[in-house]
Amino acid sequence: MTHSISDQMLAIGKAAREASRLMARAGSAQKNDALLRIAKAILQSRDALGDANAKDLSAARVAGHDAAFVDRLALSDKAIDAMAEGLQQVAALADPVGEILSMKRRPSGIQVGQMRVPLGVIGIIYESRPNVTIDAAALCIKSGNATILRGGSEAFHSNQFLAALIASSLRDVGLPAHGVQIVATQDRAAVGALITMPQYVDVIVPRGGKSLIERVSKEATVPVIKHLDGICHVYIDAQADIEKAIRVADNAKTQRYAPCNTMETLLVASSIAATVLPRLCTIYQDKGVELRVCPATRQVLEAEGFPPSVLIDATPADWTTEYLAPILSIRLVEGLDEAMAHIAQYGSAHTDAIITENHSSAMRFLREVDSSSVMVNASTRFADGFEYGLGAEIGISTNKLHARGPVGLEGLTSLKYIVFGSGEIRT
Amino acid sequence: MTHSISDQMLAIGKAAREASRLMARAGSAQKNDALLRIAKAILQSRDALGDANAKDLSAARVAGHDAAFVDRLALSDKAIDAMAEGLQQVAALADPVGEILSMKRRPSGIQVGQMRVPLGVIGIIYESRPNVTIDAAALCIKSGNATILRGGSEAFHSNQFLAALIASSLRDVGLPAHGVQIVATQDRAAVGALITMPQYVDVIVPRGGKSLIERVSKEATVPVIKHLDGICHVYIDAQADIEKAIRVADNAKTQRYAPCNTMETLLVASSIAATVLPRLCTIYQDKGVELRVCPATRQVLEAEGFPPSVLIDATPADWTTEYLAPILSIRLVEGLDEAMAHIAQYGSAHTDAIITENHSSAMRFLREVDSSSVMVNASTRFADGFEYGLGAEIGISTNKLHARGPVGLEGLTSLKYIVFGSGEIRT
Repeated sequence: MTHSISDQMLAIGKAAREASRLMARAGSAQKNDALLRIAKAILQSRDALGDANAKDLSAARVAGHDAAFVDRLALSDKAIDAMAEGLQQVAALADPVGEILSMKRRPSGIQVGQMRVPLGVIGIIYESRPNVTIDAAALCIKSGNATILRGGSEAFHSNQFLAALIASSLRDVGLPAHGVQIVATQDRAAVGALITMPQYVDVIVPRGGKSLIERVSKEATVPVIKHLDGICHVYIDAQADIEKAIRVADNAKTQRYAPCNTMETLLVASSIAATVLPRLCTIYQDKGVELRVCPATRQVLEAEGFPPSVLIDATPADWTTEYLAPILSIRLVEGLDEAMAHIAQYGSAHTDAIITENHSSAMRFLREVDSSSVMVNASTRFADGFEYGLGAEIGISTNKLHARGPVGLEGLTSLKYIVFGSGEIRT
Repeated sequence: MTHSISDQMLAIGKAAREASRLMARAGSAQKNDALLRIAKAILQSRDALGDANAKDLSAARVAGHDAAFVDRLALSDKAIDAMAEGLQQVAALADPVGEILSMKRRPSGIQVGQMRVPLGVIGIIYESRPNVTIDAAALCIKSGNATILRGGSEAFHSNQFLAALIASSLRDVGLPAHGVQIVATQDRAAVGALITMPQYVDVIVPRGGKSLIERVSKEATVPVIKHLDGICHVYIDAQADIEKAIRVADNAKTQRYAPCNTMETLLVASSIAATVLPRLCTIYQDKGVELRVCPATRQVLEAEGFPPSVLIDATPADWTTEYLAPILSIRLVEGLDEAMAHIAQYGSAHTDAIITENHSSAMRFLREVDSSSVMVNASTRFADGFEYGLGAEIGISTNKLHARGPVGLEGLTSLKYIVFGSGEIRT
């Protein structure tokens, strides 16, 4: 007798909801013990894990997946070490659960404040990257949540192996084996079921390509902590320090091209363009960055002897494109207001930076640019849970509600109100 | 030429999005000035407002609405005074916008923290209660948000009158008149459009009956701050102080029957039942509260001489019913674990209280009961923005993400990350 996918997922959801109550009440030492046991088990079963992973790798090669795909799927010795270290790092973080905030006495006599508690059940949907299985499980265990992990089906054998390690470690410390469940079915309908059972799942975190996130956001009836585009801007103000401007704008674009916090559009105040753009664009050219420019930018660069042929005319689509590649769009603006208007119109509310020595301009940019991270005189590449000191990161949220920006352990918790009384009644 | 409702709503949404940038950057003094001007204008045009309201009232009577409906629609002199006072109270609250939290230096040299900022555009859907128009507008203005208000169509004339007052007051202080828009169409399709334009609306707050909230939650593609059932419990522990237990359990049920934070189910530890229940149930009986009881409760009460006929046998449906009426379900439990299991299974995660002198039991209940408000030795009726010191309340949220429990000004804001650097780059 076979069960439908939907029934299977409902059973998983129900088990997760039940486990979530036990996970929520787990002590810090118990949770840390579980994390360290998983780390130990991974290191001790390195060979067997490698064998499981080898099955996935050979199937992926047969299926014709490209080298980058196979690379993400592979659990090299280094990747296995990194998983164990990640677990140890999360174990070393402070436990967010149970923190009590700002208990205040009210005129009625009651004392009111808030307590940080787990969200409950977290569903995580991700690609065929078995290391994400461990990263995600670690953060959910530490934050006292039950979790349902749905990794890409190409990582099936690796994930099943890891699932068994996690379950037995949870059991060893007296936590429910169902505290972390890894969806075994390779049927894609499992995702559709997972994101539409609000009775069992409190939040969905999709990690992966844009099409996955869009599909999940559109179809989910469970709230989604999502990351959409990262169309990040650096605005070089008229009163910028030129050396800082060049250092930051270079780093924001070229330190790595693929991350979501890499700059895609450079805005430059007209009055400083002739000073800063030729030097900066020479650097970009040397690094092989394609430049897509507005007419005014072209004029400035050609006046400084840039060959017209290396400059491409930007089209309106360039202002709304996340290249994730060595391509940069450049636009001159009158000043701060026009820069902020551009960001409001074309940006994706991810990460934007201003380079300026003017305090008032810096503070206006900080306050008025409505993005999850707003920076003064720093590279957009810093928008990251580790760089921000969260200790770990489940992803970056471009939501406005709940967690915004890099999401660490606190983003997997909520605050409930708590009241201490001594028999007070309302009159 | 007529426009479709959908086009009309898109135009309203676009205007709100544009206004939201100006509302977000408004100064505290400017926002307070707007609120006080609206208050003054309401008091000065008391007669004309009364005339507009009279049109709504007479139409409502002709349409056959009941007395309670007409009462909620009516703007009596007292209601008009209360609206003006509400505006003055919100003006007196601290401005939540711009608050900077916990800026910390990181090893890279950057300084990272968070800034409280408005959500953007808030859509509020509510019944034919014109006073809510003012309450909601006040909170949104103060929190720097643009807002789209969609009140019940029976309050059309009152709301249009208030809309004009608000718009001119905003204009007087240099804020955009579109900062607060009141949907004029009486077409119900307006709601459907409002809740499905995430490009223009950041959050929807439905205020009203359960069917409205369920419809909005189901159909919205914009995040919803929602309030579902309030099935609130009081658990009288074996180690309760009897006097506190009786005082609180009486108040939690009988101070008012209709509010969402009124107790609907009383749980009593078996060992204390014979001591506490007869006295408490006599009070309930005297106040005309219908008692629906489990078999063990019946046994205890009958042994104490309660006539069997005044006790009704509880059915399973009683544990999941929000009576909002002088009806109470009562169940005996073994102790703390069974009480918490009952609340987890049948409760609505709204507000639950324990009465106990035992510290460990109190702390376990606080930590493990997963509700938006959890209390020790206090009446559930305290779950309220004013009682909690929020100064005002847009509603109570039973969501787990973002605002949970009573939602005040902070619930209408979000935290973005801010970074101060001096030219730092990522390596």
